[in-house]
Amino acid sequence: MGLPVVGMVGGGQLSRMTHQASISLGLSLRVLADATHDSAALVANGVSVGDHTSLDDLRAFAEHCEVVTFDHEHVPEGLLEAMEAEGLTIYPGSAALRHAQDKIVMRERLAALGVPVPPFCPVATVRDIEGFAHHVGWPLVLKAATGGYDGKGVWVVKDAAEAAEVVAGGVRLVAEQLVPLRRELAAVVARSPYGQGAAWPVVETVQDDGICVEVVAPAPGLSEELALEAQGLALMLADELAVVGVLAVELFEVEGPGGRPTLMVNELAMRPHNSAHWTIEGARTSQFEQHLRAVLDWPLGETTLTAPWAVMANLLGGQDPEPDLDRRMHLLFGHDPGVKVHLYGKQVRPGRKIGHVTALGADLEAVRRRAQVGAAFLRDGVWPAGEQGPT
Amino acid sequence: MGLPVVGMVGGGQLSRMTHQASISLGLSLRVLADATHDSAALVANGVSVGDHTSLDDLRAFAEHCEVVTFDHEHVPEGLLEAMEAEGLTIYPGSAALRHAQDKIVMRERLAALGVPVPPFCPVATVRDIEGFAHHVGWPLVLKAATGGYDGKGVWVVKDAAEAAEVVAGGVRLVAEQLVPLRRELAAVVARSPYGQGAAWPVVETVQDDGICVEVVAPAPGLSEELALEAQGLALMLADELAVVGVLAVELFEVEGPGGRPTLMVNELAMRPHNSAHWTIEGARTSQFEQHLRAVLDWPLGETTLTAPWAVMANLLGGQDPEPDLDRRMHLLFGHDPGVKVHLYGKQVRPGRKIGHVTALGADLEAVRRRAQVGAAFLRDGVWPAGEQGPT
Repeated sequence: MGLPVVGMVGGGQLSRMTHQASISLGLSLRVLADATHDSAALVANGVSVGDHTSLDDLRAFAEHCEVVTFDHEHVPEGLLEAMEAEGLTIYPGSAALRHAQDKIVMRERLAALGVPVPPFCPVATVRDIEGFAHHVGWPLVLKAATGGYDGKGVWVVKDAAEAAEVVAGGVRLVAEQLVPLRRELAAVVARSPYGQGAAWPVVETVQDDGICVEVVAPAPGLSEELALEAQGLALMLADELAVVGVLAVELFEVEGPGGRPTLMVNELAMRPHNSAHWTIEGARTSQFEQHLRAVLDWPLGETTLTAPWAVMANLLGGQDPEPDLDRRMHLLFGHDPGVKVHLYGKQVRPGRKIGHVTALGADLEAVRRRAQVGAAFLRDGVWPAGEQGPT
Repeated sequence: MGLPVVGMVGGGQLSRMTHQASISLGLSLRVLADATHDSAALVANGVSVGDHTSLDDLRAFAEHCEVVTFDHEHVPEGLLEAMEAEGLTIYPGSAALRHAQDKIVMRERLAALGVPVPPFCPVATVRDIEGFAHHVGWPLVLKAATGGYDGKGVWVVKDAAEAAEVVAGGVRLVAEQLVPLRRELAAVVARSPYGQGAAWPVVETVQDDGICVEVVAPAPGLSEELALEAQGLALMLADELAVVGVLAVELFEVEGPGGRPTLMVNELAMRPHNSAHWTIEGARTSQFEQHLRAVLDWPLGETTLTAPWAVMANLLGGQDPEPDLDRRMHLLFGHDPGVKVHLYGKQVRPGRKIGHVTALGADLEAVRRRAQVGAAFLRDGVWPAGEQGPT
């Protein structure tokens, strides 16, 4: 067929859904997974099992690919550079990806670019943290510079004693002011090597205990001015950092001068991102197709919404390690024939992201309720309060 | 995950797109393919290679599945019955599927149900055909009772000499009046074992030399009365024949009494069907997801349109056996960022279905043009007359 081979390092749900999108484009994603039961390894044909921290494994995998991309940020920077030095094409490249791998590198670069970020300081000792607290006050936030996800690697500490416990963990840390935020937003864009950029509407993300539980597209009540500012910021960052693929910019909406809402950048991710799962049904081009188009240097697809509102609720693992999902899917679909369910094939553990539910429609509150009810019922097997579903 | 395993016999594009849909539902379609380079075998994880006319191969495949379904009608009826006798669950069952496998069985059953079909007659000799021609005139249509597809197994003959050539081929034949049709339509529905039915809007299908080249959803200018009649007919047939899964009813729109348009059934297919590929983007639930929901006996999904018009153009193989599809995709996406392309990973042969292109929008003529231009450019690598695309 004369089409390039795309490989993705990591076998999680992002890889799974990228494989799903690749099928339309005439491709079959090659996946470097940790194990044969990884989410993507269950559904893709071209799966290699290997260690993403081994240059030999990465090299053997990349040999069969025209371009290699990533479903996580955990490949060590040195190995990325070594792959590039050997002439392998990796997107995003190491020079971009380090800003998603290392929170200190990212914050320093963004500050240098004049992009608003919460006040921060790389810290190594409790004394460093106390010094920073002198400026921003307690409680403050400590974050592991590398390796955190879904609330892991983030600690809110209220005094030096609590800070000492985190320091004792021995990870590189950055301290950050605990910003009084109104809500969290995300601006997700894609960029191709040619330099083309495309933005989806800015969304509101809702977190619970550091884990994203809900995404509302577009962000309700966001002024056009602020939406354009967020999209422009994300496109500018994609360009400045030479990102190739999807870039998700997690934002805080805070109260600015005169009580006006203003934006700060919280985190960057350079891969398909949870805040854009709604695009599978909610936008003309999904983030997974867009990521593939970007890394293939194909022109990017339309990002138009397919409905006035799209709401995605994450499905987290409940208490039952072996839920009867066949029965729950049956009952949920009987209750709501329009809701779209995505299951990742992952073993259930409490709080683990094992799928998501998307609802679309014209009535925001009804759409939110449908997505939430779907995720709650699949998690617990019982209808949430106030919902009369079949049993 | 507690989810059933679904197997599909046949590794063509229908199986490929069903696998793609299965990923969202937490499944991974198991595929019984003829060869490892089959369209679905390139993208699915659970692929067995075997012979769909061998009971041993079918049995070995079905052993690992809770339910077995089909991407074609070529499994011999006796083997289907043998599988059922062994307690294997196959959907649609043999008693339903024979109406899609044998055109004589289908026509006789439909006539018995009072469903309008073109005048027909099973024929074995030239004399039989001449006798039938006495009633309906020449030219008339001869069809192979079994095994035909995409215009193969269909002959329009203008006299006894031409009929004799077809008879000499030695296949079981049914003769049919060459009905003066206005256009062709398709009513596609799904039915679950529970008995639930769901219909998509009736579409217009456009054929060229017996091969479907374009599908317009919904059928332009179709009265609500006739649309409801077509949907009702398809749902009734699904019920009467106890179909499980997708049922496509190919229809002729002919001039009835008083010049009013009226419907006749042309063919039945009991699987996802080319006339509903547009549902992937154009309907809230695609035919591939719906087929899976039906064979799992899950409640069926919403069939609402996602845009006023959806047009699908089939991508047929052009003259170049090794087209540079990477370059063509690049140029097409630069020209039209909204068109959705589906490539099947199949070796190119002139006239072979190797993919399809779907466009959506509010302006029917623009949408048709975009789908046609996309398919023509991917086929030939040159822009059709009147189209100013990048080169």
